[in-house]
Amino acid sequence: MVVKLLGRRLRLGVIGGGAGSFIGPVHRMAARLDGQYDIVASALSSNPERGRQGGLDLGLSPERSYGSWQDLIKAEAARADRADVLAVMTPNDSHFDICMAALDAGFHIVCDKPLATDLQSAQRLADKVQATGLEFCVTYCYTGYPMVRQARDMVHSGQLGTIRQIHLQYVQGNLADAPSATGWRMDPSRLGGSLVLLDIGIHAFHLGAYVSGLGMQTLFADVGATRPGGAVDDYVATLMHYDNGARGSLWVTNAAAGSEHGLSFRIHGDKGALEWHQEEPNRLLHRSGDGFDQVLTRRLGPLMSEGAQRSIRVERGHPEGYLEAFANLYTEFAQVVAARIAGQSAPAMPRLYPQVQDGVQGLSYVAAALHSAHSGTWASVAAPGAAPVVKSPNATPACPGDCTCADDWY
Amino acid sequence: MVVKLLGRRLRLGVIGGGAGSFIGPVHRMAARLDGQYDIVASALSSNPERGRQGGLDLGLSPERSYGSWQDLIKAEAARADRADVLAVMTPNDSHFDICMAALDAGFHIVCDKPLATDLQSAQRLADKVQATGLEFCVTYCYTGYPMVRQARDMVHSGQLGTIRQIHLQYVQGNLADAPSATGWRMDPSRLGGSLVLLDIGIHAFHLGAYVSGLGMQTLFADVGATRPGGAVDDYVATLMHYDNGARGSLWVTNAAAGSEHGLSFRIHGDKGALEWHQEEPNRLLHRSGDGFDQVLTRRLGPLMSEGAQRSIRVERGHPEGYLEAFANLYTEFAQVVAARIAGQSAPAMPRLYPQVQDGVQGLSYVAAALHSAHSGTWASVAAPGAAPVVKSPNATPACPGDCTCADDWY
Amino acid sequence: MVVKLLGRRLRLGVIGGGAGSFIGPVHRMAARLDGQYDIVASALSSNPERGRQGGLDLGLSPERSYGSWQDLIKAEAARADRADVLAVMTPNDSHFDICMAALDAGFHIVCDKPLATDLQSAQRLADKVQATGLEFCVTYCYTGYPMVRQARDMVHSGQLGTIRQIHLQYVQGNLADAPSATGWRMDPSRLGGSLVLLDIGIHAFHLGAYVSGLGMQTLFADVGATRPGGAVDDYVATLMHYDNGARGSLWVTNAAAGSEHGLSFRIHGDKGALEWHQEEPNRLLHRSGDGFDQVLTRRLGPLMSEGAQRSIRVERGHPEGYLEAFANLYTEFAQVVAARIAGQSAPAMPRLYPQVQDGVQGLSYVAAALHSAHSGTWASVAAPGAAPVVKSPNATPACPGDCTCADDWY
Amino acid sequence: MVVKLLGRRLRLGVIGGGAGSFIGPVHRMAARLDGQYDIVASALSSNPERGRQGGLDLGLSPERSYGSWQDLIKAEAARADRADVLAVMTPNDSHFDICMAALDAGFHIVCDKPLATDLQSAQRLADKVQATGLEFCVTYCYTGYPMVRQARDMVHSGQLGTIRQIHLQYVQGNLADAPSATGWRMDPSRLGGSLVLLDIGIHAFHLGAYVSGLGMQTLFADVGATRPGGAVDDYVATLMHYDNGARGSLWVTNAAAGSEHGLSFRIHGDKGALEWHQEEPNRLLHRSGDGFDQVLTRRLGPLMSEGAQRSIRVERGHPEGYLEAFANLYTEFAQVVAARIAGQSAPAMPRLYPQVQDGVQGLSYVAAALHSAHSGTWASVAAPGAAPVVKSPNATPACPGDCTCADDWY
Repeated sequence: MVVKLLGRRLRLGVIGGGAGSFIGPVHRMAARLDGQYDIVASALSSNPERGRQGGLDLGLSPERSYGSWQDLIKAEAARADRADVLAVMTPNDSHFDICMAALDAGFHIVCDKPLATDLQSAQRLADKVQATGLEFCVTYCYTGYPMVRQARDMVHSGQLGTIRQIHLQYVQGNLADAPSATGWRMDPSRLGGSLVLLDIGIHAFHLGAYVSGLGMQTLFADVGATRPGGAVDDYVATLMHYDNGARGSLWVTNAAAGSEHGLSFRIHGDKGALEWHQEEPNRLLHRSGDGFDQVLTRRLGPLMSEGAQRSIRVERGHPEGYLEAFANLYTEFAQVVAARIAGQSAPAMPRLYPQVQDGVQGLSYVAAALHSAHSGTWASVAAPGAAPVVKSPNATPACPGDCTCADDWY
Repeated sequence: MVVKLLGRRLRLGVIGGGAGSFIGPVHRMAARLDGQYDIVASALSSNPERGRQGGLDLGLSPERSYGSWQDLIKAEAARADRADVLAVMTPNDSHFDICMAALDAGFHIVCDKPLATDLQSAQRLADKVQATGLEFCVTYCYTGYPMVRQARDMVHSGQLGTIRQIHLQYVQGNLADAPSATGWRMDPSRLGGSLVLLDIGIHAFHLGAYVSGLGMQTLFADVGATRPGGAVDDYVATLMHYDNGARGSLWVTNAAAGSEHGLSFRIHGDKGALEWHQEEPNRLLHRSGDGFDQVLTRRLGPLMSEGAQRSIRVERGHPEGYLEAFANLYTEFAQVVAARIAGQSAPAMPRLYPQVQDGVQGLSYVAAALHSAHSGTWASVAAPGAAPVVKSPNATPACPGDCTCADDWY
Repeated sequence: MVVKLLGRRLRLGVIGGGAGSFIGPVHRMAARLDGQYDIVASALSSNPERGRQGGLDLGLSPERSYGSWQDLIKAEAARADRADVLAVMTPNDSHFDICMAALDAGFHIVCDKPLATDLQSAQRLADKVQATGLEFCVTYCYTGYPMVRQARDMVHSGQLGTIRQIHLQYVQGNLADAPSATGWRMDPSRLGGSLVLLDIGIHAFHLGAYVSGLGMQTLFADVGATRPGGAVDDYVATLMHYDNGARGSLWVTNAAAGSEHGLSFRIHGDKGALEWHQEEPNRLLHRSGDGFDQVLTRRLGPLMSEGAQRSIRVERGHPEGYLEAFANLYTEFAQVVAARIAGQSAPAMPRLYPQVQDGVQGLSYVAAALHSAHSGTWASVAAPGAAPVVKSPNATPACPGDCTCADDWY
Repeated sequence: MVVKLLGRRLRLGVIGGGAGSFIGPVHRMAARLDGQYDIVASALSSNPERGRQGGLDLGLSPERSYGSWQDLIKAEAARADRADVLAVMTPNDSHFDICMAALDAGFHIVCDKPLATDLQSAQRLADKVQATGLEFCVTYCYTGYPMVRQARDMVHSGQLGTIRQIHLQYVQGNLADAPSATGWRMDPSRLGGSLVLLDIGIHAFHLGAYVSGLGMQTLFADVGATRPGGAVDDYVATLMHYDNGARGSLWVTNAAAGSEHGLSFRIHGDKGALEWHQEEPNRLLHRSGDGFDQVLTRRLGPLMSEGAQRSIRVERGHPEGYLEAFANLYTEFAQVVAARIAGQSAPAMPRLYPQVQDGVQGLSYVAAALHSAHSGTWASVAAPGAAPVVKSPNATPACPGDCTCADDWY
């Protein structure tokens, strides 16, 4: 698609995701899968030497295997064959600085979540995106699953009637099984306040918002550590009231021993319900109000929503997974960016991927949850720009982007 | 078992459960299944004529097909072949009066939940049970499932380690699918304050208590109606803190369109987790901390806990259901009562069924949930006898037991 | 129902099912569940003393706790309050003699499967039933499940279109887990030729016939023992051609280590498919031809077929199991018998339970399967009365009904 | 990995898979996912013009967007930067000619299944591979799933004990839902005799062989069309006897209305069983002989077999699917080929992917199944090179590779 339009693939620069990273290879596989990007530049690590070697191992040329993200932005901005898109997958507390600089240098951006570690920064970034007019994708990756989009489209088209109840879960066991975990995620000052909220809670929140289309009005939260002596939050439960009067609840933890991943949603309207579990992503349970439990699969074919159909690569019966969902964000972003480069007035397709404003809303949820937990009362999920920000008590100033960090990014 | 001990079956009198009742036939099938009881007396309805005819249709003799529960208790108490046990399955607001009178007349009792419609009455009933020394079973029927007992025994034996997180659900759709429901359940003054809490919330609460063995310290609740214009509560979500520091959440509703029953628990200790769904009751998911997801079935045979093994009637692979679970309570109760009649000093078996104190705790949870919801703050789940009772605003005085009700019991 | 019609319950005599039996208690619980029968007489064991004691333990009177089935039939036939129905649950090789005698004495009969140990005997029994005009039920118990009946009614009403493919399984592990099993089941001369075929294969065959309504024309079978040194057949796989050109396959074994029960069917018509697993009997998977996978549950309510609705006791969401399915046969039989006793010209309800002709067809399948396996060719599943009978090589003459068996019945 | 070894990616040429093809994009995504290959040359269609345009649309240079496979092989063989590997994804009847020519020209080959349309050709191809010493992968793609490899390793390490029973299914609905399908697949002369056997039966056969490691000794097959007037076989059921005395059955169809994909295996040893379904590929059910049903997932981590661990890209809980499985074959093949190019004496890793001999065995199974179905008797699954080949009656000579086909390849 991009090749047909531009006669070439998009040029992608990657920042972060060096050796030992989980999310780095995911971004790169997602970018490669559909053949819309060539990875041409990298700054893989906060350690310049390791970063440069990593780029070479990816097959990049020596002069574009950069030692720092600052070098990458500066040098790429000056090249005739400069990268079209930069992808940012560094620790949370560096997203803001890197994205601000990249936007200033005119790059379109794919940024991992959370957008920033506090709501004000997130809002400033959104303002910058608007000011520059550049394209921006936040990789709330679970929105890339075809069945999540099918669910969203069914809700939006009214098949569930008015939404009345929402239940979200992200019940993960990673921390329970890794009691001695270290690194920046275990450091409240670097991850941005609350591990469980910023690492996975924000995913569950956004999934609910993406599928239901509802705004959250108020919430009550219980946030803390269930592991004895836990230095970081590992548990959040939230009660929610939505704009339309619907109620909801959320249970998110990364310390539930025995769990694997456990992201799911369950949404009830007055005409029926939808239920989806990320561990079996190719199935969507539709409990219709007339008595039928329907397991929707790609066997539906043309009966699927347009957004879902567009998100599928292989024939029915052939399961697609996490990488394909992630790749959907990259490929859709490529189409939008390529259309701009080709000078088309409108993007080639609707933007199904989360954008910068979705990133702001995530931080708005986190701020409200921390506020409620600390005050023991219901808290408003403020409109962007207005919410009070509450940091966990121990939170120290975020590591500035140009520090010499003790640990590499990954 | 009873026959071997007494040379006869136990004699059972049933109060409530006439034509149109769901729970009446359930109690009677449960009593019949194992051949431990003969149903010898009944007062099936608040309408005397219908009650008497109902008794005849069950094959009872005309003189023991009573027109009222008062007549039944009085007449049975005077017979040489008097009923050994009375089973009470009338509307919530009559449990207290009937049970008090039956205890005074010396009958052992099987009483449907809730024990009463307020905490003080429940406590008075418990005091009376203690004073009379009679046997008392509250039919929190889901405790009769073999796999619930297996779960409980696994928790108690330490297989999950220390319990850290508990999640309870009872997500039912009955009310969503019956928008024009009427009867005493739709009348807050008769059901005892909060439909969703007393009808099903109390089941979910007790299931969590039964399996985990933990006391609940404080809770925060969101209680209300999600159906527009709903006159009765149809939704409760609770955040909970337990005595040992564990945290939990609960989502209970009878207005989730598309749901069938939806009672489940999920309990995480620091060594693993258990998950059970009432709709597939013969399976218990054990997520062991060492990486294995084990679906426990009766194939386990002698590896099941003693309490679970005792609760099974048929060979592995032959599913057992709700009636069998309910019957377990009746049959165990029969063994305990028969042992007393036979003059044995100790009951024939441990009392695995819920007793009057379990009934009190249920009302204690309901009182705390209403208190929290009305105050918007965390509430203590008081020790029995101490909790403040909060009624829903519209609640009027409960219908006295001897009124001439417009609707029959069922 | 029976009480309303006759003013009393039906009187039931039970033959077989003494101490140690699995199926004996099942029959008795099934008879008790709905309160349509009083068990009034028994001959529980081939050992007269144990049989009489067993009857007393059930609460029967001494004079009706018989020592032998011959005594029971003779004495009951002479009583004014004689049993209305006799239930036969003895070893396979005694069914024929007992049923013939009971029919001659004018009793209606509930007989466990298989009807007999060879096809000719089965046909003779069917002829006798026709000659006497008595009611006869063969307890292919899996036909009592509501969802099996739902499936049958959906097939018959054409919702699947023309049936094209049928796949049956009964993959059980009992024998694999009990390598040292003994008793009459391990004795080919007593069980009637082929353990796997008569014990469980006949259930799978009948389930396919019951749901599809199709006649089997020819089959090819592989029958044998997969356990090294197995003295009895533990494995049968069959390829089938049906009257309407449909094809099918069947995999039945009781020696699959790790399996629990494993009875299932899967039927494809040209408009869709149905799939059912006995281990989760309250769900029926309907794969509609238009792309939807529907899990049918009792949530369907009035959309269920009439036969399925009639087979349900409790509200949706409350699972029913094996005993309830078994009880459906007993209760329906009670209604038919009671209507006859009441002199009604037509039975109170259609006969949904399997009758003697279903028993004959089961033996016809067994005969054809053995014939095919021994000849290595496709075999006709003959119309009753015509099929060649092939016994396993080692089969010796069946134990006559009046022998003094070394082992008790159970 | 390849980059580290060679300082560049492998160069891949693709033959077949043009516009409208399902499998073409699959091969290309699989080749791209891990960044081990650059696609440098193509001959996408039997229509030269469409083939050349397709190559340009992929971003290939004009001179390497070939119009025919003959041109591609000839021209690439002469280049200094010639392709290292050719991937063949053309219609069945052209695999033989293309592969023979490619081997003669010294290319390593990835070839789609079936290897050829008859057993003799398959054997000749295998002989050629041996003679040239080149690497050859047959994309029985389901062998790339981590849980299939986990199963294989568990069987091989003896965790199931001696294998006693095998049951294979591939119950697909594609043809039922596309009654007017056309193209080379519907033409028995081009697909190689039996659609159902060559298209999907061969996958199920190979999956059983791959996991069990057992050789099949004899089989009995029922092959035909269940759709009225079906011109191609859509149904095969097979009974199997294995070398070690195990028995098995197989049910494969592409005409089961309502089915999606339905590939599964179930293997019972005397110590337990394994069950896997391709539609939920990240789970493997292990029914251990001691009573536990274990659902194995990637949560097992280091307890997984080495082969399974090597086949995983992302963290536990993040589902992987069909493309990842397919990519495993490509990436493993890349490692082996790169090691050869680098002059290493031994490949970098064991060859977990299917090789040419696996392709031959598939055709051996097909030949035996057709022989059995036509003769109505058990047939030997001959050792490669010896089996009699039976073609379906209507089969005409295969379309020669250089014909001008009415339809493009896809």
